[in-house]
Amino acid sequence: MKNRYELLANGMASEIRAGRVPSGSRMPSLRQMMAQHGVSQATVSRAYYLLEEWGLIRARERSGYYVARGASLGLVSSQKSNDVTIEGKVDISTLVFSVLEAARHPGIVPLGSAFPSPQLFPLARLAKSLGHAVRLVNPWSTVVDLPPGNEHLRRQIALRYMAMGIPQSVDDIVITNGALEALNLCLMAVTRPGDVVAVESPGFYAALQAIERLDLRAVEIPVSPETGLDLNALENALNTHSVKACWFMTSFQNPTGTSLSTAKKQALVEMLTRFDVPLIEDDVYGELHFQPEYPIPAKGFDTQGLVMHCSSFSKTLAPGYRVGWVSAGRYSSTVQNLKLMTTLSASIPAQAGIADYLQHGGYDKHLRKLRTALRNQLVDMDGALRRWLPPGVRWTKPEGGYFLWLELPHEVDAMELHRQAISQGLSLAPGPIFSASHGYRQCIRINFGHPLTAKIEGSVKILGQLLETASES
Amino acid sequence: MKNRYELLANGMASEIRAGRVPSGSRMPSLRQMMAQHGVSQATVSRAYYLLEEWGLIRARERSGYYVARGASLGLVSSQKSNDVTIEGKVDISTLVFSVLEAARHPGIVPLGSAFPSPQLFPLARLAKSLGHAVRLVNPWSTVVDLPPGNEHLRRQIALRYMAMGIPQSVDDIVITNGALEALNLCLMAVTRPGDVVAVESPGFYAALQAIERLDLRAVEIPVSPETGLDLNALENALNTHSVKACWFMTSFQNPTGTSLSTAKKQALVEMLTRFDVPLIEDDVYGELHFQPEYPIPAKGFDTQGLVMHCSSFSKTLAPGYRVGWVSAGRYSSTVQNLKLMTTLSASIPAQAGIADYLQHGGYDKHLRKLRTALRNQLVDMDGALRRWLPPGVRWTKPEGGYFLWLELPHEVDAMELHRQAISQGLSLAPGPIFSASHGYRQCIRINFGHPLTAKIEGSVKILGQLLETASES
Repeated sequence: MKNRYELLANGMASEIRAGRVPSGSRMPSLRQMMAQHGVSQATVSRAYYLLEEWGLIRARERSGYYVARGASLGLVSSQKSNDVTIEGKVDISTLVFSVLEAARHPGIVPLGSAFPSPQLFPLARLAKSLGHAVRLVNPWSTVVDLPPGNEHLRRQIALRYMAMGIPQSVDDIVITNGALEALNLCLMAVTRPGDVVAVESPGFYAALQAIERLDLRAVEIPVSPETGLDLNALENALNTHSVKACWFMTSFQNPTGTSLSTAKKQALVEMLTRFDVPLIEDDVYGELHFQPEYPIPAKGFDTQGLVMHCSSFSKTLAPGYRVGWVSAGRYSSTVQNLKLMTTLSASIPAQAGIADYLQHGGYDKHLRKLRTALRNQLVDMDGALRRWLPPGVRWTKPEGGYFLWLELPHEVDAMELHRQAISQGLSLAPGPIFSASHGYRQCIRINFGHPLTAKIEGSVKILGQLLETASES
Repeated sequence: MKNRYELLANGMASEIRAGRVPSGSRMPSLRQMMAQHGVSQATVSRAYYLLEEWGLIRARERSGYYVARGASLGLVSSQKSNDVTIEGKVDISTLVFSVLEAARHPGIVPLGSAFPSPQLFPLARLAKSLGHAVRLVNPWSTVVDLPPGNEHLRRQIALRYMAMGIPQSVDDIVITNGALEALNLCLMAVTRPGDVVAVESPGFYAALQAIERLDLRAVEIPVSPETGLDLNALENALNTHSVKACWFMTSFQNPTGTSLSTAKKQALVEMLTRFDVPLIEDDVYGELHFQPEYPIPAKGFDTQGLVMHCSSFSKTLAPGYRVGWVSAGRYSSTVQNLKLMTTLSASIPAQAGIADYLQHGGYDKHLRKLRTALRNQLVDMDGALRRWLPPGVRWTKPEGGYFLWLELPHEVDAMELHRQAISQGLSLAPGPIFSASHGYRQCIRINFGHPLTAKIEGSVKILGQLLETASES
């Protein structure tokens, strides 16, 4: 049984989602609503607050509430986008923000989260390194550590590349505010407004947001949950469009968890070299491999400086420190200059702290522990899904990272499921946020980066119930 | 008497500066040069190294040296730009980068630096706060402290606004990677490619770089070294152009050190309110006032949420921490979303460390000491300039910050002076980097943010000699 304000909010939400209240239009004032519905001011306020939480309306200072841009996106007709290449302007941010915002509440069970549990990280040991390093920081490093960044840290990163068998020049490594900034700077380095960029479908929504923000256009290349990026479709796109850059995640891809085989990575680089198209390679999950070896990235086959290999410590060691990097090949000085112009440099204590930890903290030992924990959590989550989800739901078997990609029965609408899940206290990442065309309405991404507590198991059970109800209706 | 490699470099530099070697063209190989000039490989290498240091050529991995874009800019004819409004595409980055790069060498006396001496900051006390705060950081804050940022820090900043008499809502404050990111995000929030933006002339080169990077166009509004921004010229620009935003520094402006009077700030906001044009207010030097009171920013007169007030701790407390903010009024949710999309969040330990310091570290006491130090350094630098500079040089008398703006005799070319100064081991900031039209060729900016050591006094003496020679020739 719902409260009065929830009933009111639900009623208005359907009006907005159905597109009957145009986006950008002003919502009625509290006074009008009170009179119209015969309810108290508190009820109207709480209903509006809920609508805002759902991303359907936005408050403007001193002028009331307005219907959010794209609030009715949830109702565009479902489309088959797994095997088509679409090209066009991207409008994804509103949808992504409303989904992220809904999932951010601390009480919500984070099945839809993009982060693993921070309790898997050696935060106390890292804090020790930070405290140690910041006392030793040369005050003049504020000038010296401008891009490309702290040299000690860049040397530590270069050592790891060497251990991986793909040595990179220290001078090509640019330290950034997390991989997200690296990816964005790389995209800026090689495109101008109006250019076409190839992205994965389904793929990481930040790529779509960057494309939208920079007035670029997207060609979506299908990703199979089993075998990864469709290279034939890519070649086709390269032949038909003037593609200026590719932005791909080659290992443990977000959202599917799938990796390209080594042979496909090599073929990818050879193809892009032939077309002279740069690859922005997002490899933030590479260290989280369940097999013994780091899956060699596409960068390992790059002989022309055409691949910009982006990664960070956010998913493996230091969430929140915001330290990432790119080994940017022939684009490194352009990327450095863009970094100088936009955010100047990454936080110097954070860089120095991580450099100290890499040298003295036991990073590889921690990584082994982290990989084991994630692999076990995958087994546990897989078990929970088997126990509680109705038949007809399929999911991937990733060999690294912490994402599962679920295909639901065709009657289920992932956006609707997402809304119901939030109202039941759990989040999930609905398929439509992973494509410019808002496809994948029968898919969701599930996070197994948290230990399977009773609470999380309970939320999987609720998910199962929601799916059963949805299939019946 | 010069070395062989310096002679060689000088000869090639004049060719490049005169535009006789087109930018982008490949420089001769080492082998060709050895044969042509009958010199050793070491001589050629060192000459090329010098040319690179001067920003005239750039190395590309495995393919030799190329003439840098804009390397011949130094020779465009001098122009009177102090009283004209120019509008157009901006090409400033190459020039700025070559000047910054030349000044970055640790041995160079930093008269041209944009930073004060890091030894003026309580770095040890701040490190203690950072060490303390990072041990207490809630691991889950990686999710919670996404934009708008660490709440403790935002509350501390809001308290300072309140003490200043211009209370700001905690919800409007967005934490950024230094003020530079805040300014860039604000500009992105209110413009689209092709839009016209009003900037100061002379003004902070980062504004010009941002305009260039985002494909915007600049209208330069003259700044008088005595009275600041010319409001009549601004009104004229607002009437003639469809200006989408203004980016101004209202107190202790970079590079002139000049402030707008309180009455002019109020008139500025009233004018912009009339035209409904947002103001991006860069107030990073506001805390460095020599008068008893914080000079009220334009934001203090803003009743419509039209002013985005940007500042940071980089110039007052924590260089290198990269923590700044904007109180963005009606644009705060747009700015937050742009932050989420581009760099996700500022470094969480750095935010927490500064928040702890603000609460417990004695920030106001430190600021009083810092202001006294800077005021004394201004007196010292003013004295040194009087002792060593030839007659005919005039400079400003700022009431805060750490920049002096010098007008040189008309025979002197600031770009040429800059090159000579670098070769003598001191930097200065030549006027042309502060305008889209590369004007102010008779002006330089001098930094008094460092205590006047014998070495700095010596460099002022050298500057005087260079000026005398230049005036004679």
